[in-house]
Amino acid sequence: MTREQLIEEIKATKSFLCVGLDSDLEKIPNHLKGKEDSIFEFNKAIIDATSRYCVAYKPNIAFYESMGAAGWDILERTVNYIPKNKLIIADAKRGDIGNTSKMYARTFFETYNFDAITVAPYMGEDSITPYFGFDDKWVILLAATSNSGGLDFQYKQLTNGRMLFEEVLEKSKEWGNDDNLMYVVGATRADILQKVRAIVPNSFLLVPGVGAQGGSLSDVVKNGMNKDCGLLVNSSRGIIYADSSEKFAEIAEVKAKELQEEMQQFLEAYDVI
Amino acid sequence: MTREQLIEEIKATKSFLCVGLDSDLEKIPNHLKGKEDSIFEFNKAIIDATSRYCVAYKPNIAFYESMGAAGWDILERTVNYIPKNKLIIADAKRGDIGNTSKMYARTFFETYNFDAITVAPYMGEDSITPYFGFDDKWVILLAATSNSGGLDFQYKQLTNGRMLFEEVLEKSKEWGNDDNLMYVVGATRADILQKVRAIVPNSFLLVPGVGAQGGSLSDVVKNGMNKDCGLLVNSSRGIIYADSSEKFAEIAEVKAKELQEEMQQFLEAYDVI
Repeated sequence: MTREQLIEEIKATKSFLCVGLDSDLEKIPNHLKGKEDSIFEFNKAIIDATSRYCVAYKPNIAFYESMGAAGWDILERTVNYIPKNKLIIADAKRGDIGNTSKMYARTFFETYNFDAITVAPYMGEDSITPYFGFDDKWVILLAATSNSGGLDFQYKQLTNGRMLFEEVLEKSKEWGNDDNLMYVVGATRADILQKVRAIVPNSFLLVPGVGAQGGSLSDVVKNGMNKDCGLLVNSSRGIIYADSSEKFAEIAEVKAKELQEEMQQFLEAYDVI
Repeated sequence: MTREQLIEEIKATKSFLCVGLDSDLEKIPNHLKGKEDSIFEFNKAIIDATSRYCVAYKPNIAFYESMGAAGWDILERTVNYIPKNKLIIADAKRGDIGNTSKMYARTFFETYNFDAITVAPYMGEDSITPYFGFDDKWVILLAATSNSGGLDFQYKQLTNGRMLFEEVLEKSKEWGNDDNLMYVVGATRADILQKVRAIVPNSFLLVPGVGAQGGSLSDVVKNGMNKDCGLLVNSSRGIIYADSSEKFAEIAEVKAKELQEEMQQFLEAYDVI
């Protein structure tokens, strides 16, 4: 998916919502547990219920990998089930040396046909650039994450005046551009979003941490939105586990719709649509 | 596997060799290509040929993941085939928020019965500590890697006087200890090994980069060996792809034996055995 196609989808859907498919055998509704193919049935129901209100889906690979070979089969069928006009993100947070990164890139972009993959920066250039050798595919680089451990290293001050996540952003601009590189930036600190935007004003940002982790959507928009929107705000648990009865899909739809309506107001207020 | 068991195996085998099972459909000998279950047959032959000369095996997960569900099945059978007295390392370089790390830990430690997993530090404490909740299992944290991109961030100077990888080492000592935490330290720079040993004198280090990537075994030993050995030196391509004929396993055995004999001399010279 190209940047233009993504922006078009945002305008058509009036939303910049990404639905996180962190589908967990222990957390799906009781009536699905024990059924054959329960996780795929759960995913299908969630996708059917939410696709009018979102522009992206993000399966976290850990949840599928933990099911062994069967999980990879569910992942493949889930990716194939998602409508083609949605950005499909493999939340894999991979990061390895060059020839290994190339293997991961092939896995997620070719074997499974994802549009984007999240990648960790610690191993530097040759762990990241192999993902750029694929048309219309995206790297989403971890910059400033929303978890408590993000504080341990990402905000360390370097002697060149930058914090580590700022160094990651600056350096990554030598490797990719606004058409193939996005960043993960947590929603929990407004000042960090401002610093990110000072370095990458035009890039798309994938923002977790709204809702469950305490970030506010209006703060994210105020500090992160640009003329093309430039934001994908992720919600996982707040949508897919909003209800655990037989009505879980209806409630997921309600939650996704609420977020879409809030997002539409921001898109209008900031003249994106 | 406990630290004591690992040290015992090093003394029994007179070796601190780790064989990297980066088994790639494109690189295995021609006569195996196209055969049913060729990667597993390749792994079995390599394990049979090398197990007298090494103390650990390290499948790089990317190579198996790229084969889809079938690859995970091969991985599972490979882990089960490796003799129980060897340390089995999942080279996965995972790093994600707490509940996701727990899923990865279960996958590698319980579903697949690995003894250790490589983990990336960028997301900090809650991305690492979930791996410690398992008896006799190990985290192997990326500290200073041997790839060229390692220079981009790991050696950045912080305002507290440490380089980033030194900060990672110092901070990680708050989370784990010599019985459940090792570090990946590349072999390509002797001065870095010295800095690592100044911070974690007793820890085991997993050292890639000897041979193909240009590091010297004697430099690694001089700067990294401690009274319990404290080193696992990995070789992948130099052993498993040393020959591509029908004699590949014999040649792999020769290469592993050469390394073991060199290692035995160092173990004796440094009074470990």
